[in-house]
Amino acid sequence: MSKQELVVLGQADENGACCTGVAAAPLDVDQVAELAKVFKALGDPVRLRLMSMIASQAGGEVCVCDLTPAFDLSQPTISHHLRVLRQAGLIDCERRGTWVYYWALPATLDRLAAFLATSQPAAATA
Amino acid sequence: MSKQELVVLGQADENGACCTGVAAAPLDVDQVAELAKVFKALGDPVRLRLMSMIASQAGGEVCVCDLTPAFDLSQPTISHHLRVLRQAGLIDCERRGTWVYYWALPATLDRLAAFLATSQPAAATA
Repeated sequence: MSKQELVVLGQADENGACCTGVAAAPLDVDQVAELAKVFKALGDPVRLRLMSMIASQAGGEVCVCDLTPAFDLSQPTISHHLRVLRQAGLIDCERRGTWVYYWALPATLDRLAAFLATSQPAAATA
Repeated sequence: MSKQELVVLGQADENGACCTGVAAAPLDVDQVAELAKVFKALGDPVRLRLMSMIASQAGGEVCVCDLTPAFDLSQPTISHHLRVLRQAGLIDCERRGTWVYYWALPATLDRLAAFLATSQPAAATA
């Protein structure tokens, strides 16, 4: 499911330049469904904190055991929020022994950024 | 209320460069509250279509009378969604006679884009 958003977000032409932006043309019903899901995933304070904690991790990944203590929430609640981020294609994870390790998918964040930018996005000049 | 997000989104240094991004550092509780509200505003299919219809308007603004026919929704429901976008600082409006006219606030979209971009944002190279 997480791959589907990657298609919608910042569709690239043969040069890798982003050609679909919020200010480019009115979105049709099919496009907004997937996009809205990604924005909705970020539209919660707990998930946005989790996203920033994971995306800013110097080592590239973070153990769920290092995320949970930052919140006054149960482990299942944190896991639910992480699942929403994962289903939106914003993060991915892998279980190793007792713990699950999470990492950000920067391509999704960058494509989301390119979608929102009304000025020329950085990706299009690369 | 809409001005408050502009402070949080992509805080700029004295050179106007964006210095706060999702991958820069873990966000604190105060930062995420306002940011999550903006993402939540975009996290609805109807609002995302409205946002793209307004942001892509060639003339810069659009009459609510030209937005409503695109949806199978009542005028009060459309007005509610437009109010959420406005309260998030994404659009603004002005009443002229019978109708209300809406326009996008590209600075908010661009700051949101700079916040999400994990690579160097376009704004920082301007």
